Amino acid sequence: MNRTKTPLTVDPSVLADLLDGRWASERRRGRTLVEHPDTVPPITGDLDEMREATLRGVRALGESGSTLRSLPTELGGENDHAGYVAAFEESVTASPSLQIKAGVQYGLFGGAIQHLGNAEQHAQWLLPAQRGELLGCFAMTEIGHGSDVASLGTIAVYDPAAEEFVITTPFRAATKEYIGNAAAHGRAAVVFAQLITAGVDHGVHAFFVPIRTEDGEPMPGVSIEDDGRKGGLLGVDNGRLAFADVRVPRTHLLDRYGAVAPDGTYSSPIDSPGRRFFTMLGTLVQGRVSLDGAAVVAAKLGLDIAVRYGLERRQFTGADDTEEVVLMDYQQHQRRLMPLLAETYANAIAHEVLLASFQRVFSGEDDSDEARQLLETQAAGFKATSTWDALDVLQECREACGGAGFMTENRLTGLRADLDVYVTFEGDNTVLLQLVGKRLLGDYAAEFKNIDVGGVARFIGTQAAEHSLYRSGLANVGRTIGEVLTPGLTERRIRSGRLQELLLSARVDTMVAELASNLRPASKLPKEEAAALLNENQHELIEAAKAYVELLKWQALNTAMHTFDDDPRRADEAKALRRIRDLYGLTLIERSIGWHIMYGRLSMNRARQVGPAINRLCAKLAGNAADLVAAFGYGPEHRRATIAEGVEARRQTEAREHYRRARAQADHPVDEKVLHRERTRKG
Amino acid sequence: MNRTKTPLTVDPSVLADLLDGRWASERRRGRTLVEHPDTVPPITGDLDEMREATLRGVRALGESGSTLRSLPTELGGENDHAGYVAAFEESVTASPSLQIKAGVQYGLFGGAIQHLGNAEQHAQWLLPAQRGELLGCFAMTEIGHGSDVASLGTIAVYDPAAEEFVITTPFRAATKEYIGNAAAHGRAAVVFAQLITAGVDHGVHAFFVPIRTEDGEPMPGVSIEDDGRKGGLLGVDNGRLAFADVRVPRTHLLDRYGAVAPDGTYSSPIDSPGRRFFTMLGTLVQGRVSLDGAAVVAAKLGLDIAVRYGLERRQFTGADDTEEVVLMDYQQHQRRLMPLLAETYANAIAHEVLLASFQRVFSGEDDSDEARQLLETQAAGFKATSTWDALDVLQECREACGGAGFMTENRLTGLRADLDVYVTFEGDNTVLLQLVGKRLLGDYAAEFKNIDVGGVARFIGTQAAEHSLYRSGLANVGRTIGEVLTPGLTERRIRSGRLQELLLSARVDTMVAELASNLRPASKLPKEEAAALLNENQHELIEAAKAYVELLKWQALNTAMHTFDDDPRRADEAKALRRIRDLYGLTLIERSIGWHIMYGRLSMNRARQVGPAINRLCAKLAGNAADLVAAFGYGPEHRRATIAEGVEARRQTEAREHYRRARAQADHPVDEKVLHRERTRKG
Repeated sequence: MNRTKTPLTVDPSVLADLLDGRWASERRRGRTLVEHPDTVPPITGDLDEMREATLRGVRALGESGSTLRSLPTELGGENDHAGYVAAFEESVTASPSLQIKAGVQYGLFGGAIQHLGNAEQHAQWLLPAQRGELLGCFAMTEIGHGSDVASLGTIAVYDPAAEEFVITTPFRAATKEYIGNAAAHGRAAVVFAQLITAGVDHGVHAFFVPIRTEDGEPMPGVSIEDDGRKGGLLGVDNGRLAFADVRVPRTHLLDRYGAVAPDGTYSSPIDSPGRRFFTMLGTLVQGRVSLDGAAVVAAKLGLDIAVRYGLERRQFTGADDTEEVVLMDYQQHQRRLMPLLAETYANAIAHEVLLASFQRVFSGEDDSDEARQLLETQAAGFKATSTWDALDVLQECREACGGAGFMTENRLTGLRADLDVYVTFEGDNTVLLQLVGKRLLGDYAAEFKNIDVGGVARFIGTQAAEHSLYRSGLANVGRTIGEVLTPGLTERRIRSGRLQELLLSARVDTMVAELASNLRPASKLPKEEAAALLNENQHELIEAAKAYVELLKWQALNTAMHTFDDDPRRADEAKALRRIRDLYGLTLIERSIGWHIMYGRLSMNRARQVGPAINRLCAKLAGNAADLVAAFGYGPEHRRATIAEGVEARRQTEAREHYRRARAQADHPVDEKVLHRERTRKG
Repeated sequence: MNRTKTPLTVDPSVLADLLDGRWASERRRGRTLVEHPDTVPPITGDLDEMREATLRGVRALGESGSTLRSLPTELGGENDHAGYVAAFEESVTASPSLQIKAGVQYGLFGGAIQHLGNAEQHAQWLLPAQRGELLGCFAMTEIGHGSDVASLGTIAVYDPAAEEFVITTPFRAATKEYIGNAAAHGRAAVVFAQLITAGVDHGVHAFFVPIRTEDGEPMPGVSIEDDGRKGGLLGVDNGRLAFADVRVPRTHLLDRYGAVAPDGTYSSPIDSPGRRFFTMLGTLVQGRVSLDGAAVVAAKLGLDIAVRYGLERRQFTGADDTEEVVLMDYQQHQRRLMPLLAETYANAIAHEVLLASFQRVFSGEDDSDEARQLLETQAAGFKATSTWDALDVLQECREACGGAGFMTENRLTGLRADLDVYVTFEGDNTVLLQLVGKRLLGDYAAEFKNIDVGGVARFIGTQAAEHSLYRSGLANVGRTIGEVLTPGLTERRIRSGRLQELLLSARVDTMVAELASNLRPASKLPKEEAAALLNENQHELIEAAKAYVELLKWQALNTAMHTFDDDPRRADEAKALRRIRDLYGLTLIERSIGWHIMYGRLSMNRARQVGPAINRLCAKLAGNAADLVAAFGYGPEHRRATIAEGVEARRQTEAREHYRRARAQADHPVDEKVLHRERTRKG
């Protein structure tokens, strides 16, 4: 009915190359993980079975050697951080539990040793960790403090007599909580605690602490509790850790950013304790980077399943009396799935930008403060929005598949349940967006550099940015939009990329300027009133951060869209990408259309064209939906969803064949409705 | 920081009486179900354990006698349909699995026998069903057809020689699917099949079919498959049923609306087969009514848990250097939870309106076509929006509780997983809203009465409404809004109830008129073009239906708000309700603010006041958040969430006490930050 009659001729492999990006070969290698017999966990099972199965996958990854890739060359690695992460993200296709448990083992536990430890510590623990031989935990979060890491309650007091640190959980709220690998498998943990030596509290540092003996019993003084069942990620053995005067040698302090001499003297290459803390935390950004990418992988899987089913499943007859309409031909079905498909393309391509930032900083190519801050801001903003988007995508896909979508064998509910916690761990999304918002304000005006938004200053660090991250500037935005919007605005014009970018960037500019103007009095107010004023603008700050991240993602997609500009053989792929960009851009604009009109950026008449333009783009893209999901590069071994592999079409063929035969029978019953119509006509 | 310093003095029991409504005593009796030792299933367990536990709850309900309440008095009932449903909905507090499995047993299986069967059939099966002795299934949905019931593939061919029906599943897609009670416990099923006798297909009818022998084996010719694991509702044993020439006596046809004489002659009190079909389906509206109410119960539980935790949990310091800020004092936390709280109030109160319609029709007080159609439209629209809202509420609550929200012991993820399928069963929400939209069009102009929107005509029936359901009319809406909106619009004016109602109703009016104007050419177009035109307006049709349902719910809340107008002792409760209504109304308006501006209903300047007014309302309501959730009437036995019962506050007290003692010690370490500040100052 409503799909384009003549879809574009799109080669999915061309789009796949674009989506898989600079680290395509690593990413595709990561996808072969599902072929290993130990990596795909059973779809059901009790907690122990799920955990053991996931552990086998973690070990298989370690044995493959791929987990060494991000190590420096002197340790046998390739200093390839982005390639490593790209491959690792694809472990979501095996199972999100495997991604997270492996992330704990190799990214967080191993990563903390790598980035916070010294050469001797690397020699002792890093290779065994990255080979999956030394299983470990990343014990940062506590019951009482998640987002506010600086306020952790665990203490590590140096005892110069014994040359040991004494690690203590002084009260229940200081118990380490939700710690992956803690409930069952971890032998050691990197424990974050307040380092106290010679009567001074030097703030949070990381310590290597054995937590289990060789035979799996808790070490003396270590209490371990099992978090039990969770809303998802059943393969990850989360638990709680508490320490009762647990002693570790002085050399167990991971001392890259803060060391203690045998006599208890503290030293650090970074003088400011605040800056030191944020530098330490900054080395752990890889977790957020990979969650951004993992969320994209999950969204791709969901869309791949739902689109394939939507192209086969039929319900209700339309123009034809007997042939039922394919779901994907319904406008509403297109409206449900196509904008999410476009968004997933945008998120995938924006993730490439993040990976490039990540590689620049971590390879040492450019680890300036500015590059690190850009990376941290992108990671925070992209992770926050991509993980929320993934939940929306998976839920919409599940609903678009009806009852079949609810069956575990079709994977959508399981993926969604597993992805759920991605929005609040490795940085709660709401807190991360405040961090982005604070960064925007700091770039807007120096006076906001050290603003404390709900404690967020602690999170983002105190150093000032050298240059403005956000450069588009406020000047003349109103006039520029006026120039783009001529009175005879056709669909082509509402689909203008320049208009989209102007609208999206004008929104960020204006929101940030408004916020700055609202908050300016804060510096002169008494502390309590200043805090209240900041709080009264918290929602707007988060909205501004979202708007900024949307702009960055749109720009990434827009840049990628121009890839084929000069290649006439790729005209149809370029056209498909333009439709994707337009649908993404117009969907973003539609979501805040009230804002764009209220602020005079879009006239009412033009605003009315946005909805119809979206409808047309959805219909057009639906005509290539099969190609667009094929470009994700997944096969049945990744989807593993019964409904995605043609079963519905086969059943329909069987039913159609049955009815054809039945109608040919002499004794085929007459439909009472037909008789009734005749009766009524006669009567 | 941002909560009202002087909250209203609200008596939760006053609001509880309003929320629990006309059937409060039954509703509250329903809440005591959790005290029965057999009704609360274990939080984890394998499928068999969960199913057996849920079955015990179903039996306990049957033994209690409460399941007889909706029967006619001559069968020992009280003809109290709304009271029965109100009590039944509260079984969600025990577990959604129990609600659904009991709903299958008593509402669908028993309900079909009651509403479609004759007196003899009642005598034989109804009481055993309602006592939970005869366990049964409701076998309507098939693999190939869910929403489109008229197209079911199962056939029941009458054999006059044997005076039997022969029930057959002619192809795989005709297999009954997702059938509750089928996989393990059902002994019989009400099977929906195309009734064929004397060479005529009379359409879908219901048959009583034994499916298991006394010792639990499938009856000859009956194949049973287990649907296995689902995304939720693990206590419900869903399965598939297929029939290979299964014979049942002629008297097993539930023949209230269509009977077959021994010689095979068909007769029905309803001449038109279309009308007959919709009348039969209409008797089963109770399922949708109770899902609307069940969704409200689940949302209340989620908010109760998240609000209690949000009033205790602290994170980051604000104005004070050591005391951390309570989550509920953050503006963003208020913005996340308070609009959902207001929406839940609206949904609860609108559900009362639905229950009243339901009671009027089913008690026989008014079972006119008009009353039935109003009931069906309300049930469709309210169920669709309430179940989606419940998912949003539970997800937001889970995220607002951070990692703790993800733990199974805190119940939010489990409730959400269970509620997930509510949005696509008993009428897929998208289909239900089309049904509402079609009804709106039909009321707008007679020519749309029989419009076929994506097959939806089949769903809603073909009979024309006697009177317009939707009466507000288009005349002068523009001018009226102009009158309300004087230039000096203060917050009080943006909070005007009259303005809210005008905006919400003008939106429905205009959308329906636009749709009608878009669709008018359809009747003159060739069939294929007409279908395409309808499809091009499907999204707008659904949006109009949503806008209409929002208006109805707002009106219900608005009416309830006036309950205390004349009672000066209830001034604060009245004020709280007004805030709730305003927050609900303004949130609805904000969600479509672009529309209201685009169509000239709201000036840009006034539109800009909506956001700030919402912020202020959120802050005010947060000051009474504890009262507002207390009014839901749930105790720890219903919430059963560790974080909702004060554990966080106790841990904080312990931590605070620890720090107080520690600071008093002579050897309490100095904070390096303090030393650094002093150093920097000196330097």
